[in-house]
Amino acid sequence: MRLSIEAVLDYGFPAPADVLLQLEVAALPDQRLEAQSLVIESDHPIRAVAGEEGIGQRCWARAERRLVARYAATVVIDRASVRLDVLPATPAALLPAATIPYLFPSRYCESDRFEYFVRRTFAGLGGGALAVALADWVRTHLDYASVPPGGGALHTFAERRGVCRDYAHLLVALARAAEIPARCVSVYAPDVDPPDFHAVAELWLDGAWHLLDATGMARTDEMARVGVGRDATDIAFMTIFGSADLWEQRVRVTRLDQERSERSGVGM
Amino acid sequence: MRLSIEAVLDYGFPAPADVLLQLEVAALPDQRLEAQSLVIESDHPIRAVAGEEGIGQRCWARAERRLVARYAATVVIDRASVRLDVLPATPAALLPAATIPYLFPSRYCESDRFEYFVRRTFAGLGGGALAVALADWVRTHLDYASVPPGGGALHTFAERRGVCRDYAHLLVALARAAEIPARCVSVYAPDVDPPDFHAVAELWLDGAWHLLDATGMARTDEMARVGVGRDATDIAFMTIFGSADLWEQRVRVTRLDQERSERSGVGM
Amino acid sequence: MRLSIEAVLDYGFPAPADVLLQLEVAALPDQRLEAQSLVIESDHPIRAVAGEEGIGQRCWARAERRLVARYAATVVIDRASVRLDVLPATPAALLPAATIPYLFPSRYCESDRFEYFVRRTFAGLGGGALAVALADWVRTHLDYASVPPGGGALHTFAERRGVCRDYAHLLVALARAAEIPARCVSVYAPDVDPPDFHAVAELWLDGAWHLLDATGMARTDEMARVGVGRDATDIAFMTIFGSADLWEQRVRVTRLDQERSERSGVGM
Amino acid sequence: MRLSIEAVLDYGFPAPADVLLQLEVAALPDQRLEAQSLVIESDHPIRAVAGEEGIGQRCWARAERRLVARYAATVVIDRASVRLDVLPATPAALLPAATIPYLFPSRYCESDRFEYFVRRTFAGLGGGALAVALADWVRTHLDYASVPPGGGALHTFAERRGVCRDYAHLLVALARAAEIPARCVSVYAPDVDPPDFHAVAELWLDGAWHLLDATGMARTDEMARVGVGRDATDIAFMTIFGSADLWEQRVRVTRLDQERSERSGVGM
Repeated sequence: MRLSIEAVLDYGFPAPADVLLQLEVAALPDQRLEAQSLVIESDHPIRAVAGEEGIGQRCWARAERRLVARYAATVVIDRASVRLDVLPATPAALLPAATIPYLFPSRYCESDRFEYFVRRTFAGLGGGALAVALADWVRTHLDYASVPPGGGALHTFAERRGVCRDYAHLLVALARAAEIPARCVSVYAPDVDPPDFHAVAELWLDGAWHLLDATGMARTDEMARVGVGRDATDIAFMTIFGSADLWEQRVRVTRLDQERSERSGVGM
Repeated sequence: MRLSIEAVLDYGFPAPADVLLQLEVAALPDQRLEAQSLVIESDHPIRAVAGEEGIGQRCWARAERRLVARYAATVVIDRASVRLDVLPATPAALLPAATIPYLFPSRYCESDRFEYFVRRTFAGLGGGALAVALADWVRTHLDYASVPPGGGALHTFAERRGVCRDYAHLLVALARAAEIPARCVSVYAPDVDPPDFHAVAELWLDGAWHLLDATGMARTDEMARVGVGRDATDIAFMTIFGSADLWEQRVRVTRLDQERSERSGVGM
Repeated sequence: MRLSIEAVLDYGFPAPADVLLQLEVAALPDQRLEAQSLVIESDHPIRAVAGEEGIGQRCWARAERRLVARYAATVVIDRASVRLDVLPATPAALLPAATIPYLFPSRYCESDRFEYFVRRTFAGLGGGALAVALADWVRTHLDYASVPPGGGALHTFAERRGVCRDYAHLLVALARAAEIPARCVSVYAPDVDPPDFHAVAELWLDGAWHLLDATGMARTDEMARVGVGRDATDIAFMTIFGSADLWEQRVRVTRLDQERSERSGVGM
Repeated sequence: MRLSIEAVLDYGFPAPADVLLQLEVAALPDQRLEAQSLVIESDHPIRAVAGEEGIGQRCWARAERRLVARYAATVVIDRASVRLDVLPATPAALLPAATIPYLFPSRYCESDRFEYFVRRTFAGLGGGALAVALADWVRTHLDYASVPPGGGALHTFAERRGVCRDYAHLLVALARAAEIPARCVSVYAPDVDPPDFHAVAELWLDGAWHLLDATGMARTDEMARVGVGRDATDIAFMTIFGSADLWEQRVRVTRLDQERSERSGVGM
């Protein structure tokens, strides 16, 4: 699957502020960048640093009055679809060091509060079957709706509605409560409605990370990962150390194969 | 400074559980291990994995009915005392990638909730002078007292009392709110009263991590680091994936140089 | 139904403290006191004040070193069992002034956080049918288990276990979220296991308050009300303005009719 | 002091909703109504019910599409200014029954979380001197600034800024933590900037309720009380059982004596 990605951020700043951007698709074995450009309008030098786990990268910018960032990329996703429900559970002692922090609660994934709920509600399930059951639970018990930001999984669990970030937080919290390493991933994907940056979960099952979108909006073989982390704090496309006003924000993700086939269809 | 360290954990388990231990002093340039032994009584194989940031290590154990761990070490600490208050602030854009996660809020360090408080209360201060002022604030506004565990920095900020973990959480949260990378560190140190595992903060100032104990109990040149992380979730000496009863827990940290000089003093 | 009630409280006080006791069965049309005695051992005068809504009474005591209270009563309960599920919903505008505070969230019944959940999960239900559905939901989604005190309905909603107080808080919060006035009630009742002070909910339906025990342990026609209020803060059998150690606490509630019939059975 | 009060509410309703209005100045010994009119545009009958503690009144309305309420009143305030700092503390056992609920924590005044802070910070103070010290603390430690609604005293304590409601919540919570009965009061007052409904605290000292505005914006002898209660939930000028859009809201409070004296001044 080839995806064309465009994103524009335009923010106003009442006072100068440091800004950390994380917009670029990460180069990874299952997603190959054909072309990519990030233009940040700024009087100050921009500095890039590696992302969490060495996946992708972030850019530091200094915003004065206004910050405009334009991102464009073409990405080829080559990710096999995996049947998760048959994957076995990994014994804790076999978890690699790098997955261990993803067993712990984080700012917006208070997994320590869901241990009994998970044990009680999903008794008898483990590994991939449990992962799929947790994602199903989140999808069927939440409604997709705009809510004030700032709540974590515990908030969403009672609120029963939210956006992609909230779905991801809750799934990640439930998975960790079940002793499955789980992290949040920012992605670009087509069909996200309304079009926007998207957040999904990634669970460690049978020796590998597996993408899981509890909203059901994005297909596993059509997501381009940007960054990974413990929750929304780590994967925010923009972290502002200060305050800012949103002037414009636009994300557009298009399937190129489909366009081409449609075009060739037209040509026939 | 040479330290002799002994720790014993003895816990009962009503049901089998995975246990993650993090008890061993990390080998680091400023702390050298002369001798070290960790004995875990278990019918199951123990597996070691690297700690956060590659610092120190953790051990996975499987506990059935009872888990006993005995740790002993001799460590030479060779850490120069640094005058923190004169260290300059590091511009955000110069922060290394590895320090960036320590700018973000975590489960028990809700730094997002203290931004205005820090700006209002410590206006005009930056870098090391701010770090010292924050540590002073925490030390003079909290009383050292046993409290039910589970509260984070926000809880402690109102409660105005707690143990070393609570002091560290609050200092770390305030530092992050001031855009200073800050992490929690588990250490062994003499003079901790009552003797126990100890938790302190580490702040990134002028290109290096600097230890800061807001309780004032441990001297910088007498702490032996075990592990680092975002908050108590990452640096717990024992994480139990299930429940357990504390049967015995004992920590003893002794200055060897002092003992020797005392002994030779006696001989004179 | 005639009930014999005995309660003993024996607490130690490290420092003198004001104590508010609320132990006495309230005299109400559906529960008649045949005999009652409350003895509080104290060097200070005891003063009684009316309870919330003028129901029952509280006693102020001043505790120094130790407070012992002994309560005994014989109560005749004459309360018709009502089929709640057929009661119609009361339009808000017809609610009496005294019920309105019980529509609002309180310290441990954060009803504002459950509005969408209730609307989504119980769509189409109203009045008594909704009240019964809410109580069923609480009973089937919680397990009765001892938990650290201090959590409210929101905590219990995720924790999925608790004691009578937690069941009552959650039912009350859900009812208020559905625009049904709901209050907490402390009661004595037989069959509470383990025997203790008991807390239940009372919902305003079709022009009257109706008792509802989401734990299912107490029968409506066997509860002797002590006090009412917004949540556990109002109905605590003892509120300590300071700290105290529990030395002994014992509650015994016995059906007298049953005893008598058993005895006469023996005599035959 | 004579005050002229005008208030207009104009709200849109996406779906029909019950609305509880509490806009009218209460008739009380220290505030006498010369004239008063409340006009609510509605197709449904409006029903008035008594307010909390029998003070003032509320109106139930049924809103469909739009709700407009216009209130106008002329009130004579005759309230002696009292020097609070010399008032003695009231022993708990002498508190009237009606003040006791105001010792307890409520939804937005989590007084249980501030007991140690108050004891530690204001040691040695009691009664009116403590009340004044608490109000001073709140005024000097908070900045008046618009913040997202929904936070309680605990939130405000860390946030260090807020509006009148937040100041009142924090003062009330601190007072209750000090065993002083404290309630929230909605008032009209001149000089509130920007002009709006206003919320203040009322503390029970030396046998009477005393108004205290921690924001310092309203003078005690110029406040016209509307309603009282445990916190913002009880004293909201409008409680919407559903959702609504603010179209217009305007409050105007003018000193009539001043106007007249100014006018007569001009005439001289």
